[in-house]
Amino acid sequence: MTDISEERAQRHKARMQNRKAVQDAEVAAKTVEKGLLIVNTGPGKGKSTAAFGLALRMLGHGRRVGVVQFIKGVWQTGEREAFSAFGERVVWHTMGEGFTWETQDLERDITAARRAWDKARELIGDPALSLVVLDELNIALRYDYLDLAEVVDTLRNRRDDLHVVVTGRNAKPELIAAADLVTEMGAVKHHFAAGVKAQPGIEF
Amino acid sequence: MTDISEERAQRHKARMQNRKAVQDAEVAAKTVEKGLLIVNTGPGKGKSTAAFGLALRMLGHGRRVGVVQFIKGVWQTGEREAFSAFGERVVWHTMGEGFTWETQDLERDITAARRAWDKARELIGDPALSLVVLDELNIALRYDYLDLAEVVDTLRNRRDDLHVVVTGRNAKPELIAAADLVTEMGAVKHHFAAGVKAQPGIEF
Repeated sequence: MTDISEERAQRHKARMQNRKAVQDAEVAAKTVEKGLLIVNTGPGKGKSTAAFGLALRMLGHGRRVGVVQFIKGVWQTGEREAFSAFGERVVWHTMGEGFTWETQDLERDITAARRAWDKARELIGDPALSLVVLDELNIALRYDYLDLAEVVDTLRNRRDDLHVVVTGRNAKPELIAAADLVTEMGAVKHHFAAGVKAQPGIEF
Repeated sequence: MTDISEERAQRHKARMQNRKAVQDAEVAAKTVEKGLLIVNTGPGKGKSTAAFGLALRMLGHGRRVGVVQFIKGVWQTGEREAFSAFGERVVWHTMGEGFTWETQDLERDITAARRAWDKARELIGDPALSLVVLDELNIALRYDYLDLAEVVDTLRNRRDDLHVVVTGRNAKPELIAAADLVTEMGAVKHHFAAGVKAQPGIEF
Protein backbone atom coordinates (compact mmCIF):
# COMPACT_ATOMS: atom_id res chain seq x y z
CA MET A 1 0.00 0.00 0.00
CA THR A 2 1.13 3.52 -0.78
CA ASP A 3 -0.12 6.88 0.48
CA ILE A 4 -1.60 8.34 -2.71
CA SER A 5 -4.79 10.37 -2.47
CA GLU A 6 -7.73 9.41 -4.70
CA GLU A 7 -7.54 12.84 -6.34
CA ARG A 8 -3.85 12.44 -7.23
CA ALA A 9 -4.47 8.95 -8.59
CA GLN A 10 -7.29 10.24 -10.80
CA ARG A 11 -5.22 13.17 -12.08
CA HIS A 12 -2.42 10.76 -12.91
CA LYS A 13 -4.80 8.45 -14.75
CA ALA A 14 -6.28 11.27 -16.87
CA ARG A 15 -2.81 12.53 -17.78
CA MET A 16 -1.63 9.06 -18.73
CA GLN A 17 -4.72 8.43 -20.88
CA ASN A 18 -3.86 11.56 -22.86
CA ARG A 19 -0.24 10.52 -23.06
CA LYS A 20 -1.21 7.08 -24.34
CA ALA A 21 -3.40 8.59 -27.08
CA VAL A 22 -0.43 10.69 -28.28
CA GLN A 23 1.86 7.69 -28.01
CA ASP A 24 -0.47 5.41 -29.98
CA ALA A 25 -0.85 8.01 -32.72
CA GLU A 26 2.93 8.33 -32.98
CA VAL A 27 3.43 4.58 -33.21
CA ALA A 28 0.68 4.29 -35.85
CA ALA A 29 2.40 7.00 -37.93
CA LYS A 30 5.57 4.91 -38.18
CA THR A 31 5.10 2.40 -40.94
CA VAL A 32 8.47 2.10 -42.68
CA GLU A 33 10.46 -1.11 -42.27
CA LYS A 34 14.04 -1.01 -43.48
CA GLY A 35 17.55 -2.02 -42.68
CA LEU A 36 19.16 0.77 -40.69
CA LEU A 37 22.60 2.27 -41.01
CA ILE A 38 23.52 2.93 -37.37
CA VAL A 39 26.53 4.95 -36.20
CA ASN A 40 27.78 4.91 -32.58
CA THR A 41 30.33 7.65 -32.15
CA GLY A 42 31.62 10.16 -29.58
CA PRO A 43 34.33 10.07 -26.90
CA GLY A 44 32.30 8.18 -24.28
CA LYS A 45 32.17 4.49 -23.47
CA GLY A 46 29.54 2.17 -24.93
CA LYS A 47 29.97 2.55 -28.70
CA SER A 48 31.16 -1.01 -29.38
CA THR A 49 29.35 -2.36 -26.32
CA ALA A 50 25.99 -1.12 -27.62
CA ALA A 51 26.78 -2.54 -31.07
CA PHE A 52 27.44 -5.96 -29.54
CA GLY A 53 24.30 -5.59 -27.41
CA LEU A 54 22.35 -5.05 -30.63
CA ALA A 55 23.99 -8.15 -32.11
CA LEU A 56 22.82 -10.07 -29.05
CA ARG A 57 19.27 -8.78 -29.54
CA MET A 58 19.35 -9.97 -33.17
CA LEU A 59 20.61 -13.38 -32.07
CA GLY A 60 17.68 -13.55 -29.65
CA HIS A 61 15.40 -13.37 -32.68
CA GLY A 62 17.16 -16.33 -34.28
CA ARG A 63 19.00 -14.16 -36.81
CA ARG A 64 22.61 -14.26 -37.98
CA VAL A 65 25.20 -11.56 -37.35
CA GLY A 66 28.56 -10.68 -38.88
CA VAL A 67 31.35 -8.73 -37.16
CA VAL A 68 34.49 -7.18 -38.60
CA GLN A 69 36.90 -5.61 -36.14
CA PHE A 70 39.03 -2.94 -37.81
CA ILE A 71 41.28 -2.54 -34.77
CA LYS A 72 42.58 -5.58 -32.98
CA GLY A 73 43.65 -5.54 -29.36
CA VAL A 74 42.96 -7.25 -26.09
CA TRP A 75 39.54 -5.61 -26.40
CA GLN A 76 36.33 -7.50 -27.05
CA THR A 77 37.79 -10.83 -26.00
CA GLY A 78 34.82 -11.20 -23.64
CA GLU A 79 32.22 -10.67 -26.34
CA ARG A 80 34.02 -12.92 -28.74
CA GLU A 81 34.03 -15.74 -26.23
CA ALA A 82 30.37 -15.14 -25.32
CA PHE A 83 29.26 -15.12 -28.95
CA SER A 84 30.72 -18.60 -29.40
CA ALA A 85 27.59 -19.78 -27.52
CA PHE A 86 25.66 -19.01 -30.73
CA GLY A 87 27.84 -21.18 -32.96
CA GLU A 88 27.82 -20.43 -36.65
CA ARG A 89 25.12 -17.78 -36.25
CA VAL A 90 27.94 -15.33 -35.51
CA VAL A 91 30.63 -14.77 -38.14
CA TRP A 92 33.52 -12.90 -36.49
CA HIS A 93 36.61 -11.51 -38.22
CA THR A 94 39.33 -9.63 -36.38
CA MET A 95 41.23 -8.06 -39.24
CA GLY A 96 43.01 -5.12 -37.64
CA GLU A 97 46.60 -5.14 -36.43
CA GLY A 98 46.24 -3.32 -33.12
CA PHE A 99 46.31 0.38 -32.41
CA THR A 100 48.52 2.57 -34.57
CA TRP A 101 50.87 3.18 -31.65
CA GLU A 102 51.33 -0.56 -31.25
CA THR A 103 52.17 -1.41 -34.85
CA GLN A 104 54.09 1.85 -35.51
CA ASP A 105 53.87 0.86 -39.15
CA LEU A 106 51.67 2.99 -41.39
CA GLU A 107 51.83 0.72 -44.42
CA ARG A 108 50.90 -2.30 -42.34
CA ASP A 109 47.95 -0.37 -40.82
CA ILE A 110 46.66 0.67 -44.23
CA THR A 111 47.02 -2.85 -45.64
CA ALA A 112 45.17 -4.29 -42.64
CA ALA A 113 42.36 -1.72 -42.97
CA ARG A 114 41.91 -2.53 -46.65
CA ARG A 115 41.82 -6.25 -45.94
CA ALA A 116 39.22 -5.62 -43.24
CA TRP A 117 37.12 -3.57 -45.66
CA ASP A 118 37.25 -6.38 -48.24
CA LYS A 119 35.91 -8.74 -45.59
CA ALA A 120 33.25 -6.18 -44.61
CA ARG A 121 32.06 -5.99 -48.22
CA GLU A 122 31.88 -9.77 -48.33
CA LEU A 123 29.67 -9.86 -45.19
CA ILE A 124 27.50 -6.99 -46.47
CA GLY A 125 26.89 -9.11 -49.56
CA ASP A 126 25.96 -12.23 -47.57
CA PRO A 127 22.15 -12.68 -47.74
CA ALA A 128 22.18 -14.91 -44.62
CA LEU A 129 23.15 -12.03 -42.30
CA SER A 130 20.61 -9.65 -40.70
CA LEU A 131 23.17 -7.38 -39.04
CA VAL A 132 26.79 -6.51 -39.78
CA VAL A 133 28.89 -4.75 -37.12
CA LEU A 134 31.85 -2.78 -38.49
CA ASP A 135 33.70 -2.18 -35.25
CA GLU A 136 36.04 0.84 -35.24
CA LEU A 137 35.56 1.45 -38.96
CA ASN A 138 35.46 5.17 -38.07
CA ILE A 139 39.12 5.01 -37.02
CA ALA A 140 40.18 3.64 -40.39
CA LEU A 141 38.14 6.34 -42.12
CA ARG A 142 39.49 9.10 -39.90
CA TYR A 143 43.08 8.33 -40.86
CA ASP A 144 42.12 7.97 -44.53
CA TYR A 145 43.19 4.35 -44.62
CA LEU A 146 40.11 3.73 -46.75
CA ASP A 147 38.34 5.66 -49.49
CA LEU A 148 35.44 7.38 -47.72
CA ALA A 149 33.31 7.78 -50.84
CA GLU A 150 33.60 4.09 -51.67
CA VAL A 151 32.72 3.03 -48.12
CA VAL A 152 29.66 5.32 -47.94
CA ASP A 153 28.58 4.20 -51.40
CA THR A 154 28.81 0.52 -50.47
CA LEU A 155 26.85 1.11 -47.27
CA ARG A 156 24.14 3.11 -49.08
CA ASN A 157 23.76 0.43 -51.74
CA ARG A 158 23.46 -2.56 -49.44
CA ARG A 159 20.31 -4.68 -49.61
CA ASP A 160 17.16 -3.02 -48.21
CA ASP A 161 16.71 -5.09 -45.07
CA LEU A 162 20.32 -5.33 -43.89
CA HIS A 163 21.16 -3.48 -40.66
CA VAL A 164 24.72 -2.19 -40.31
CA VAL A 165 26.35 -0.69 -37.21
CA VAL A 166 29.52 1.37 -37.53
CA THR A 167 31.43 2.29 -34.36
CA GLY A 168 34.35 4.52 -33.42
CA ARG A 169 35.09 8.12 -32.50
CA ASN A 170 35.03 10.98 -34.96
CA ALA A 171 32.51 9.62 -37.46
CA LYS A 172 32.88 11.42 -40.78
CA PRO A 173 30.08 13.89 -41.69
CA GLU A 174 29.46 12.00 -44.95
CA LEU A 175 28.79 8.80 -42.99
CA ILE A 176 26.48 10.63 -40.56
CA ALA A 177 24.60 12.07 -43.54
CA ALA A 178 24.04 8.56 -44.91
CA ALA A 179 23.00 7.06 -41.54
CA ASP A 180 19.48 6.48 -40.19
CA LEU A 181 20.43 6.47 -36.51
CA VAL A 182 23.40 8.27 -35.00
CA THR A 183 24.21 8.25 -31.30
CA GLU A 184 26.97 10.34 -29.75
CA MET A 185 28.31 8.73 -26.60
CA GLY A 186 29.46 11.54 -24.31
CA ALA A 187 31.84 10.94 -21.40
CA VAL A 188 30.29 12.67 -18.38
CA LYS A 189 32.60 10.90 -15.95
CA HIS A 190 35.25 8.23 -16.52
CA HIS A 191 36.84 5.87 -14.01
CA PHE A 192 40.20 5.89 -15.85
CA ALA A 193 40.59 9.51 -14.65
CA ALA A 194 40.29 8.19 -11.08
CA GLY A 195 43.16 5.73 -11.62
CA VAL A 196 41.00 2.66 -12.15
CA LYS A 197 42.57 0.16 -14.54
CA ALA A 198 40.98 -1.83 -17.38
CA GLN A 199 39.15 -4.80 -15.87
CA PRO A 200 37.78 -8.06 -17.32
CA GLY A 201 34.10 -7.85 -18.25
CA ILE A 202 34.22 -4.05 -18.26
CA GLU A 203 36.86 -3.02 -20.78
CA PHE A 204 37.54 -6.37 -22.45
CA MET B 1 51.22 -2.38 -51.58
CA THR B 2 50.46 1.22 -50.75
CA ASP B 3 51.99 4.46 -52.04
CA ILE B 4 53.60 5.74 -48.84
CA SER B 5 56.98 7.48 -49.08
CA GLU B 6 59.81 6.25 -46.87
CA GLU B 7 59.94 9.67 -45.21
CA ARG B 8 56.24 9.62 -44.30
CA ALA B 9 56.53 6.08 -42.96
CA GLN B 10 59.46 7.11 -40.75
CA ARG B 11 57.65 10.21 -39.45
CA HIS B 12 54.65 8.07 -38.64
CA LYS B 13 56.82 5.56 -36.80
CA ALA B 14 58.53 8.23 -34.67
CA ARG B 15 55.18 9.81 -33.78
CA MET B 16 53.70 6.45 -32.83
CA GLN B 17 56.72 5.54 -30.67
CA ASN B 18 56.16 8.75 -28.68
CA ARG B 19 52.45 8.04 -28.48
CA LYS B 20 53.10 4.52 -27.20
CA ALA B 21 55.41 5.83 -24.45
CA VAL B 22 52.65 8.20 -23.27
CA GLN B 23 50.07 5.42 -23.52
CA ASP B 24 52.19 2.94 -21.57
CA ALA B 25 52.82 5.50 -18.81
CA GLU B 26 49.09 6.17 -18.56
CA VAL B 27 48.22 2.49 -18.33
CA ALA B 28 50.93 1.95 -15.68
CA ALA B 29 49.49 4.82 -13.60
CA LYS B 30 46.12 3.05 -13.36
CA THR B 31 46.37 0.49 -10.60
CA VAL B 32 42.97 0.52 -8.87
CA GLU B 33 40.71 -2.50 -9.29
CA LYS B 34 37.16 -2.05 -8.07
CA GLY B 35 33.56 -2.73 -8.87
CA LEU B 36 32.21 0.19 -10.87
CA LEU B 37 28.92 2.01 -10.55
CA ILE B 38 28.08 2.74 -14.18
CA VAL B 39 25.27 5.02 -15.36
CA ASN B 40 24.03 5.09 -18.97
CA THR B 41 21.72 8.06 -19.42
CA GLY B 42 20.67 10.67 -21.98
CA PRO B 43 17.98 10.85 -24.66
CA GLY B 44 19.83 8.76 -27.28
CA LYS B 45 19.63 5.08 -28.10
CA GLY B 46 22.01 2.52 -26.64
CA LYS B 47 21.63 2.94 -22.87
CA SER B 48 20.11 -0.50 -22.19
CA THR B 49 21.79 -2.00 -25.25
CA ALA B 50 25.25 -1.09 -23.94
CA ALA B 51 24.33 -2.43 -20.49
CA PHE B 52 23.37 -5.77 -22.02
CA GLY B 53 26.52 -5.69 -24.15
CA LEU B 54 28.51 -5.34 -20.92
CA ALA B 55 26.59 -8.27 -19.45
CA LEU B 56 27.57 -10.29 -22.52
CA ARG B 57 31.24 -9.35 -22.02
CA MET B 58 31.05 -10.51 -18.38
CA LEU B 59 29.48 -13.78 -19.49
CA GLY B 60 32.37 -14.22 -21.91
CA HIS B 61 34.67 -14.25 -18.88
CA GLY B 62 32.65 -17.04 -17.28
CA ARG B 63 31.02 -14.70 -14.74
CA ARG B 64 27.42 -14.46 -13.57
CA VAL B 65 25.07 -11.55 -14.21
CA GLY B 66 21.81 -10.34 -12.67
CA VAL B 67 19.21 -8.15 -14.40
CA VAL B 68 16.22 -6.32 -12.95
CA GLN B 69 13.97 -4.53 -15.43
CA PHE B 70 12.09 -1.68 -13.76
CA ILE B 71 9.90 -1.08 -16.81
CA LYS B 72 8.31 -3.99 -18.60
CA GLY B 73 7.27 -3.83 -22.22
CA VAL B 74 7.78 -5.61 -25.48
CA TRP B 75 11.32 -4.32 -25.14
CA GLN B 76 14.37 -6.49 -24.50
CA THR B 77 12.60 -9.68 -25.58
CA GLY B 78 15.53 -10.32 -27.92
CA GLU B 79 18.17 -10.03 -25.20
CA ARG B 80 16.18 -12.11 -22.82
CA GLU B 81 15.91 -14.92 -25.33
CA ALA B 82 19.60 -14.64 -26.24
CA PHE B 83 20.71 -14.73 -22.60
CA SER B 84 18.93 -18.06 -22.16
CA ALA B 85 21.95 -19.52 -24.03
CA PHE B 86 23.93 -18.93 -20.82
CA GLY B 87 21.55 -20.89 -18.58
CA GLU B 88 21.66 -20.13 -14.89
CA ARG B 89 24.60 -17.75 -15.29
CA VAL B 90 22.00 -15.05 -16.04
CA VAL B 91 19.37 -14.22 -13.42
CA TRP B 92 16.67 -12.10 -15.07
CA HIS B 93 13.72 -10.44 -13.36
CA THR B 94 11.18 -8.31 -15.19
CA MET B 95 9.44 -6.55 -12.32
CA GLY B 96 7.93 -3.44 -13.92
CA GLU B 97 4.39 -3.14 -15.14
CA GLY B 98 4.89 -1.37 -18.45
CA PHE B 99 5.17 2.32 -19.15
CA THR B 100 3.17 4.73 -16.99
CA TRP B 101 0.87 5.54 -19.91
CA GLU B 102 0.09 1.85 -20.31
CA THR B 103 -0.83 1.09 -16.71
CA GLN B 104 -2.44 4.51 -16.05
CA ASP B 105 -2.31 3.50 -12.41
CA LEU B 106 0.07 5.42 -10.16
CA GLU B 107 -0.31 3.17 -7.14
CA ARG B 108 0.34 0.08 -9.22
CA ASP B 109 3.45 1.72 -10.74
CA ILE B 110 4.84 2.63 -7.33
CA THR B 111 4.17 -0.83 -5.92
CA ALA B 112 5.87 -2.43 -8.92
CA ALA B 113 8.90 -0.13 -8.58
CA ARG B 114 9.28 -0.99 -4.90
CA ARG B 115 9.02 -4.69 -5.61
CA ALA B 116 11.66 -4.32 -8.33
CA TRP B 117 13.93 -2.46 -5.90
CA ASP B 118 13.56 -5.25 -3.31
CA LYS B 119 14.67 -7.71 -5.98
CA ALA B 120 17.55 -5.43 -6.95
CA ARG B 121 18.77 -5.35 -3.33
CA GLU B 122 18.60 -9.12 -3.25
CA LEU B 123 20.78 -9.43 -6.38
CA ILE B 124 23.21 -6.77 -5.10
CA GLY B 125 23.62 -8.93 -2.01
CA ASP B 126 24.26 -12.11 -4.00
CA PRO B 127 28.01 -12.92 -3.83
CA ALA B 128 27.78 -15.15 -6.94
CA LEU B 129 27.07 -12.20 -9.26
CA SER B 130 29.82 -10.06 -10.86
CA LEU B 131 27.47 -7.56 -12.52
CA VAL B 132 23.95 -6.36 -11.78
CA VAL B 133 22.02 -4.42 -14.45
CA LEU B 134 19.26 -2.17 -13.08
CA ASP B 135 17.48 -1.41 -16.32
CA GLU B 136 15.42 1.81 -16.33
CA LEU B 137 15.95 2.38 -12.61
CA ASN B 138 16.40 6.07 -13.50
CA ILE B 139 12.73 6.24 -14.57
CA ALA B 140 11.55 4.98 -11.18
CA LEU B 141 13.83 7.51 -9.46
CA ARG B 142 12.75 10.36 -11.69
CA TYR B 143 9.10 9.93 -10.73
CA ASP B 144 10.03 9.50 -7.06
CA TYR B 145 8.62 5.97 -6.95
CA LEU B 146 11.63 5.07 -4.80
CA ASP B 147 13.57 6.85 -2.07
CA LEU B 148 16.61 8.29 -3.84
CA ALA B 149 18.79 8.50 -0.72
CA GLU B 150 18.16 4.86 0.11
CA VAL B 151 18.92 3.71 -3.43
CA VAL B 152 22.18 5.70 -3.63
CA ASP B 153 23.16 4.49 -0.17
CA THR B 154 22.59 0.83 -1.09
CA LEU B 155 24.60 1.24 -4.29
CA ARG B 156 27.48 2.99 -2.48
CA ASN B 157 27.61 0.29 0.18
CA ARG B 158 27.63 -2.72 -2.13
CA ARG B 159 30.58 -5.11 -1.94
CA ASP B 160 33.86 -3.76 -3.35
CA ASP B 161 34.12 -5.88 -6.50
CA LEU B 162 30.50 -5.77 -7.67
CA HIS B 163 29.84 -3.86 -10.90
CA VAL B 164 26.40 -2.25 -11.25
CA VAL B 165 24.93 -0.61 -14.35
CA VAL B 166 21.95 1.75 -14.02
CA THR B 167 20.14 2.82 -17.20
CA GLY B 168 17.45 5.31 -18.15
CA ARG B 169 17.04 8.95 -19.09
CA ASN B 170 17.35 11.80 -16.62
CA ALA B 171 19.73 10.23 -14.12
CA LYS B 172 19.53 12.07 -10.79
CA PRO B 173 22.56 14.26 -9.89
CA GLU B 174 22.99 12.33 -6.62
CA LEU B 175 23.36 9.09 -8.58
CA ILE B 176 25.82 10.68 -11.01
CA ALA B 177 27.84 11.95 -8.04
CA ALA B 178 28.08 8.40 -6.66
CA ALA B 179 28.98 6.82 -10.03
CA ASP B 180 32.42 5.90 -11.38
CA LEU B 181 31.49 5.99 -15.05
CA VAL B 182 28.69 8.05 -16.57
CA THR B 183 27.89 8.10 -20.27
CA GLU B 184 25.34 10.42 -21.82
CA MET B 185 23.84 8.94 -24.98
CA GLY B 186 22.95 11.85 -27.25
CA ALA B 187 20.54 11.48 -30.17
CA VAL B 188 22.24 13.03 -33.19
CA LYS B 189 19.76 11.49 -35.63
CA HIS B 190 16.90 9.07 -35.06
CA HIS B 191 15.08 6.88 -37.56
CA PHE B 192 11.74 7.21 -35.73
CA ALA B 193 11.69 10.83 -36.91
CA ALA B 194 11.87 9.50 -40.48
CA GLY B 195 8.78 7.32 -39.93
CA VAL B 196 10.64 4.05 -39.40
CA LYS B 197 8.84 1.72 -37.01
CA ALA B 198 10.26 -0.40 -34.17
CA GLN B 199 11.82 -3.54 -35.68
CA PRO B 200 12.88 -6.90 -34.22
CA GLY B 201 16.55 -7.03 -33.30
CA ILE B 202 16.78 -3.23 -33.30
CA GLU B 203 14.26 -1.96 -30.76
CA PHE B 204 13.28 -5.24 -29.09
